[in-house]
Amino acid sequence: MAQVEARVLKGFRDYLPEADIPRQAMLRKVVAVFESFGFGPLTTPALEYADILLGKYGEEGDQLLYRFADNGGRDVALRYDLTVPLARVVAQHRSLDMPFRRYQVAPVWRAEKPGRGRFREFLQCDVDIVGEASARADAECMMVGLEVLGALGVPGFVMRVNNRKILDGLLDRVGVEGRERRHAVLRVMDKLPKIGRAGVEAELSDEVGLDAEARSLLFEVLGRPVAGSAGVRALDDAVGGSEAGRLGITELAELLDIVEAAGYGDRVEVDLSIARGLDYYTGTIYETFVRDREGFGSVMSGGRYDTLLAMFLRESIPAVGISLGIDRLVSLLVDLGLVGGRAGTADVFAAAFDDEGYGAMVRWAGALRRAGVGVETSLVAGRLGKQFRLAEKKGYRFVVLQGPDERAADKLALKDLQSGEQVTVDLEEVVRRVRSAPDGGHG
Amino acid sequence: MAQVEARVLKGFRDYLPEADIPRQAMLRKVVAVFESFGFGPLTTPALEYADILLGKYGEEGDQLLYRFADNGGRDVALRYDLTVPLARVVAQHRSLDMPFRRYQVAPVWRAEKPGRGRFREFLQCDVDIVGEASARADAECMMVGLEVLGALGVPGFVMRVNNRKILDGLLDRVGVEGRERRHAVLRVMDKLPKIGRAGVEAELSDEVGLDAEARSLLFEVLGRPVAGSAGVRALDDAVGGSEAGRLGITELAELLDIVEAAGYGDRVEVDLSIARGLDYYTGTIYETFVRDREGFGSVMSGGRYDTLLAMFLRESIPAVGISLGIDRLVSLLVDLGLVGGRAGTADVFAAAFDDEGYGAMVRWAGALRRAGVGVETSLVAGRLGKQFRLAEKKGYRFVVLQGPDERAADKLALKDLQSGEQVTVDLEEVVRRVRSAPDGGHG
Repeated sequence: MAQVEARVLKGFRDYLPEADIPRQAMLRKVVAVFESFGFGPLTTPALEYADILLGKYGEEGDQLLYRFADNGGRDVALRYDLTVPLARVVAQHRSLDMPFRRYQVAPVWRAEKPGRGRFREFLQCDVDIVGEASARADAECMMVGLEVLGALGVPGFVMRVNNRKILDGLLDRVGVEGRERRHAVLRVMDKLPKIGRAGVEAELSDEVGLDAEARSLLFEVLGRPVAGSAGVRALDDAVGGSEAGRLGITELAELLDIVEAAGYGDRVEVDLSIARGLDYYTGTIYETFVRDREGFGSVMSGGRYDTLLAMFLRESIPAVGISLGIDRLVSLLVDLGLVGGRAGTADVFAAAFDDEGYGAMVRWAGALRRAGVGVETSLVAGRLGKQFRLAEKKGYRFVVLQGPDERAADKLALKDLQSGEQVTVDLEEVVRRVRSAPDGGHG
Repeated sequence: MAQVEARVLKGFRDYLPEADIPRQAMLRKVVAVFESFGFGPLTTPALEYADILLGKYGEEGDQLLYRFADNGGRDVALRYDLTVPLARVVAQHRSLDMPFRRYQVAPVWRAEKPGRGRFREFLQCDVDIVGEASARADAECMMVGLEVLGALGVPGFVMRVNNRKILDGLLDRVGVEGRERRHAVLRVMDKLPKIGRAGVEAELSDEVGLDAEARSLLFEVLGRPVAGSAGVRALDDAVGGSEAGRLGITELAELLDIVEAAGYGDRVEVDLSIARGLDYYTGTIYETFVRDREGFGSVMSGGRYDTLLAMFLRESIPAVGISLGIDRLVSLLVDLGLVGGRAGTADVFAAAFDDEGYGAMVRWAGALRRAGVGVETSLVAGRLGKQFRLAEKKGYRFVVLQGPDERAADKLALKDLQSGEQVTVDLEEVVRRVRSAPDGGHG
C-alpha cells in the first residue's frame, strides 16, 4: 500500500482534545437540562432510505443531501436534520406514549458550500414534543431552550418568536398566493439578518415579482414593535380578515401568556420578521440571538410542524421542537473568552520519580481515582523536568509524585504549578486539597 | 409528495428512550472512567477520503466500506473504525504532545451481512495512547478498560491477552511464510470461539494448506495454560529460536508484571489462541469475555499497532488501544437483568390539577429543578387518573401536584406511586424526600 496523505474533506473538521474538552463539557450540561425537563434520549441511524428525507426540506435541501446507492443498491442518504428522522420514528413505532418528549444530540450532513462557520457536518441538539397541539408544548420547548442557554452561561441572549400563521395572514393580505410562491417569500425574508432590508426588497421584487406596494405593506408589518401577549392581541389589523392570521395571533398570545407567567418574559421578544427557511413549519417559529453578536446568526431555533407526520401516516400528529447549534455556541463562547482550552481531562498529573516506583505510582493513582480524583499518570519515569512541562502544557495545576523518601514514609508530594508550592502530605490530604481547589484543580 | 412508508434500513436500528436511557447512562460512566485516567476526547468526521481507510483492514474490510462519490465527485467512505481516523489525525496534526491519549465514542459503519447482534452501524468507545512504545502504555489501556467494566457492573469478566509477536514466532516455527499467508492463518484462528477447533483445523487445512503436523504443533501451543508473567517467561520453547517470538515473550511478560503489581492480575489471563482479525496489530492483543456468556463474543478488545502510522508518515509512531463494544454490553446487561428500562428521565412527574393552576405549576417545577430535582410537567390539566397512569408507565415513582387547597397554603402534594402514600408538604420537603429515595426517585 502506497503512503497516503493524511487530510480531511473540505467542510469537515477534527476537534482535537483542547477544543473538544469544553465542547463535551457543554454537551453534558445541555443533556442534563434536557433530562431535568423529562426529555428522553433517542438514537437513530445516520443513514436513512432516501425517500424518507426527500421532499421535506424544499428543492434546495434535496440537492444538499449526501445521497448514494449502498452496497446492496439501495437509495440511501445521510440525515439532513434530526426532525425528519424523529417523524419517521413516531410514524414507525405507534406504541410510543404521547406526548412523546425526546432529545437527540447527533451530527447531520449537508453538502453546502463550506464557508466561515458553515460546515458539511455539524452537531445538532434537539428537543421535541410530539402529540400535543397546545401552546403548552411550544412553551415547554422554549423554556427548556432558555434554561440550556442559561446553564451554558451564554450572556445577553434573546429568543425572537413569531407564528407562521400570522405570516400566512399577512401574505393573504398582501396577495401572495400558491404554496410555492409563499414559501419563496418566506425563504427570502429569512435572509433579512444576512442581506438586510434592501437585499430582501430586491429579491422580493426580482425573484418573486412582488410590487412596491406589497413590499411596503409587508415591511410596515414586519418591522412593528410588539410588546408581549397584549401587543400580539392588538395585531388583528395586520392580518386583515385572514382566518389563518387570526388563529396565529391567538396561538402566539397564548404561548406568551405561559412564558410570561412562568417568568421567562424578559428573555423573549416577538419579532414578526422571523420566517425560518424550512418548509415544514406551520405555527410557532423561534430563533435566538446573542446581543452584540447577531453576526453569529441564530444559536437556537425551531418551531411547530403539525403536518410533517402526515407525510408518513394517514393521520396528522402535531409536533414542536427546538434545535441548539452547539458548534456555533462553542465558537461564540471561545470568542468571548468564556470557555478555555486545556488538553488534560483528569484532575492531577502523576509524575513517576523512577522506574522502581512505577508500580507503586499506578497503585496510589488508583487509590486517588477511587477517592474521586482523576489522575493522568506519566508513562515515562525520571527526567522530572520533562514530565512537569508536559503536565503544565496539558493545563494541569497539580502534579503528584513519590520519591524514595515519600515512599518510605507512605506520603505523597503535591506540587502546585500555579504557586510553585510543594508539600509532603498523605493521600487523604492530596484529595482534600485538590477537591477544594477552584475548578477541581484545573490550571 | 406521496406518502412514504416509515422504515429503517436493514442492519440499522433506532434506540427508543426506554432502551437509550440505560445506554446513555452507561456511556456517561464509560467517559467518566476514561477522563479519570487523563484521556481527552477527540471528534473526527464520519466521512473520510476513501484512500485514508482503504488497505488498512484487509481485503474483506475494504469490501465492507460504505464508499461512494460525493456531490463533488470525491471518493469518500464512512469510517469503519476509530483507529485509522486516529492515525490520520496524529499524522496530520504533528504538534500534538506525545504520548497522546485520546478517547472517542462514535458510530462506525460496516456493510456486513446483518445477523443476530451484528449491525451495520454500531457505537465504538475507544481509548488509545499514541507515541509510547513501552508496555506501560499497553498496561494503561488494559487497566482503564478493566476499570470501565467494573464501573458498569459487568459481572465475572476476564481479559485474555496475547502478543502477535509470539504468534509470529510460532508461525516461524511451524513454517508459515509470507505476509498474506500468515494473516490468513491468524484470521482463521480468530474464529476459534465461533467455529471451534475442528472448524479451525478444517479451514487451516483446506484454505491455507497447513498440514496435519503443523496444525497439531500449532494447537499444542495455542492450548497451553500459561500462568502469569512467570508462565510467559517459560514459553521460550514454544517459539523455537524465533527472534520475533522471544521479543513477544519479553513484551507480554513486562505487561503482566505491571498489571499484576497494580493489582489487576485476577482479571487478566494469558491465552495464546487470541489472534484478532485485523491486519494492523503488531504486539499486545486483547479480548475480554464475560464468564458463562462467552457466546456474546468479546465485549472489549484491541492491541498494539506500531506500523499503522507509517501508512501516513515517513516515520513510524508506536500506538496501542482498546475498544469497548458498548451496544453488545448493553444487550448483555439487559439480558442479565442488571439494567432496566424506563421512559422518563426526570426525577418526578408534575401533574396539573386544573387549567387555573398551570402557570403556578410551571413555576414550582422550575423551583424544584433549581433545587436539583428533575421534573417532567404534564402538558394537559385535569383528568388526573390519566396523568398518573402516564407517570407510572414512564417509570416515575413520585408525582407532585398542587390542588386549590395546597395552592392556598403554598404547599405541594407528593404521591409515592410505590407505596400509595400521599403527603402535603412544602417544596423543601419534596426535595428532601425525593433526593433521599433510592435511585433518586426512579420507580
